[in-house]
Amino acid sequence: MALLSSLTPLFVAALCVVLVFLFKSSQKKENEAVKPEWKPTAESRPWVDEDLQDDTEIRHKDEEDGDWVESGGEEELAHVPYPASRYPVEVMVQRSQDFYSLMNQRRSVRFLSPEPVPRQVIDNVIRTAGTAPSGAHTEPWTFVVVSDPEVKHQIRLVVEEEEEVNYRHRMGDKWVSDLQRLRTNWVKQYLDVAPYLVLIFKQTYGVVAGGQKKTHYYNEISVSISCGLLLAALQNAGLVTVTTTPLNCGPQLRLLLGRPANEKLLMLLPVGYPAPDATVPDLTRKPLDDIMVHL
Amino acid sequence: MALLSSLTPLFVAALCVVLVFLFKSSQKKENEAVKPEWKPTAESRPWVDEDLQDDTEIRHKDEEDGDWVESGGEEELAHVPYPASRYPVEVMVQRSQDFYSLMNQRRSVRFLSPEPVPRQVIDNVIRTAGTAPSGAHTEPWTFVVVSDPEVKHQIRLVVEEEEEVNYRHRMGDKWVSDLQRLRTNWVKQYLDVAPYLVLIFKQTYGVVAGGQKKTHYYNEISVSISCGLLLAALQNAGLVTVTTTPLNCGPQLRLLLGRPANEKLLMLLPVGYPAPDATVPDLTRKPLDDIMVHL
Repeated sequence: MALLSSLTPLFVAALCVVLVFLFKSSQKKENEAVKPEWKPTAESRPWVDEDLQDDTEIRHKDEEDGDWVESGGEEELAHVPYPASRYPVEVMVQRSQDFYSLMNQRRSVRFLSPEPVPRQVIDNVIRTAGTAPSGAHTEPWTFVVVSDPEVKHQIRLVVEEEEEVNYRHRMGDKWVSDLQRLRTNWVKQYLDVAPYLVLIFKQTYGVVAGGQKKTHYYNEISVSISCGLLLAALQNAGLVTVTTTPLNCGPQLRLLLGRPANEKLLMLLPVGYPAPDATVPDLTRKPLDDIMVHL
Repeated sequence: MALLSSLTPLFVAALCVVLVFLFKSSQKKENEAVKPEWKPTAESRPWVDEDLQDDTEIRHKDEEDGDWVESGGEEELAHVPYPASRYPVEVMVQRSQDFYSLMNQRRSVRFLSPEPVPRQVIDNVIRTAGTAPSGAHTEPWTFVVVSDPEVKHQIRLVVEEEEEVNYRHRMGDKWVSDLQRLRTNWVKQYLDVAPYLVLIFKQTYGVVAGGQKKTHYYNEISVSISCGLLLAALQNAGLVTVTTTPLNCGPQLRLLLGRPANEKLLMLLPVGYPAPDATVPDLTRKPLDDIMVHL
C-alpha cells in the first residue's frame, strides 16, 4: 500500500504524458492532412482554373476574364473601326503556303558568324516582337540587346560557369551522356561570337505612378508569344538564333544587365548570320495529322 | 503533510502536461519554420533556377541543359549542313520593315464574319505553328480545329456558363466594373459565328511505347511560342482572331473534345475574316525605347 501510494504520482504523470502526446499528435496529423492544399504564394481563390496548374494563370484570374482585353488603362477606350485588308482566296492560300515554307526552314542554329548585322534590322525584329498580344495589354516584356563585346563576354562567363557546375555536379550521368549524344556541353562559344545577344525578360509585375504594383496577368505566356513573333521576324530577315533558357543564370544576368527586380530572365537568343560551316541535327517535324485534330 | 502527499500526483501530472505541451509546441514551430520551403510537386533539386518561379521551368531542368536541343529521340542524330539563304543588306532591312508593318496591323478582333475560310489556309497556319522550337524537340502541342456548328455551340455553352458564374458570383464589383468599361461580358457570340475555333492544348507529358510517361520540358513556353507563330500566320493570311484563355473551362472542354488527360487547354482562338462592322479599342503600343535596352 505504501508502494502503491508512492507509485501513484509516477503513474498519473506517465498517463498524462501519454494522453497529451496523443492529443498533440492527432493535432499534428490534422495539420499534415491539410498540407497538400497549402499554397504559399496564392491567396484563396476557389474559382481559379486548377487545370492549367500555372501560377501565372492563377494570379491572372483576379481582375480579368479569359479574354486578353487590350486596354490602355483605367479610362474607357474609344472603339474604332477595324481596317480590314482582305486577299483574294487564291492569294490567301498562296500566302499561307509561302509563309509556312519560310518558317519551316527555321532551325535552331548554334554556329553563328561574327559578321555585323544592321542595327536597323534588330530594331525592326524587336518592334515586331512588341506587337504581340498580352494579358490586359500590359506588354510585359523587356528586350535587352547586347552588342558590346565585353558585356557579351561577361554573360558568357556567367552562363558557362553555371553550366559547368550543372554538368559536373548537378546533373546525373544519364543526363550528361544524353547531352553528349546531342553534342551539347557547357561551352557556349556563340555568346562571344554572335553580333547580338537578345535577353528576353518577363515583367512579373508593373510599377505605376505612386510606386504601387500592378499585376501582369499571364506575363510568361504573353512574353513567350512575343518570342514566337521575334523568331518569325528573324527568320523572315534571314537571321538565325537558338532559343535558350540558361539554367540558374537569371538572377546574375539580371544584376549584370542592371534590370529591376520585377524582371525575370525568360530566354536568351544569340542572333546573327549562320556560320558558313553551320550544321544542325537532322531531325524532322511531326506531320499535320499528328498535331491537328479536326472536328 | 497528508495534504501534500495527496497533492503530489496532481502536481507532477500538471508539470508533465506543461512540459510535454511545451516540447511538442517547439517541434511544431520547427515544422512551421520549414514550411515555406516545402514544395508539394517538385522533387528536391537544389540546382534549379528559382528565379523563374515556374513549375514548368523546374521540371525541365531534370534532363536537359538550357538549350532547346532539337533531338528526335534516344539515338544520336546525324548533323547536317545548315542551308543558309542570305538576303542583300538592303533587301534584309526592307523585309524586316515590311514584316513589322504587317504584324503591327494585327489586332485582337472580337467581331468575326461567318463567311467560310478555305480549309487549306487553316491547314497551313497550323503547319506553321508546328514549326516552333520546343524543349528537347518534344513538339508538345495539339491544335483542335472545330468547324462543326454543334460542337462550336457546345463550346460556347461551356464557356458562357462558366463566364456568367465568374461575372455574377466569383468576381468582385471592381473587376466587373473594369470589364464593363472594356465592353467585355460573358456573352461570346464569336464562338458560334467564327467559321473555325482553334483550341490549343499543351501536352504536359508524353506517353512512349510501353505506357511510360516522358517529361515535356517547358511545354507551356513552347506552346506559347507556337501560338506566336500561329498569330503571325493568321495575320499574314488576312485572318483575325482574339487570344483567349477561357476561365475554368479547361477540364470540361478537354472532355467535350475527347482529349487525353495529359493535354491541358492553354488558349482558344476563334478564327475567321473580320465582320464588316468590326471595331477594336483605340489603343497604342509602347514605343521601341520602352521595350528595348541596348548595351
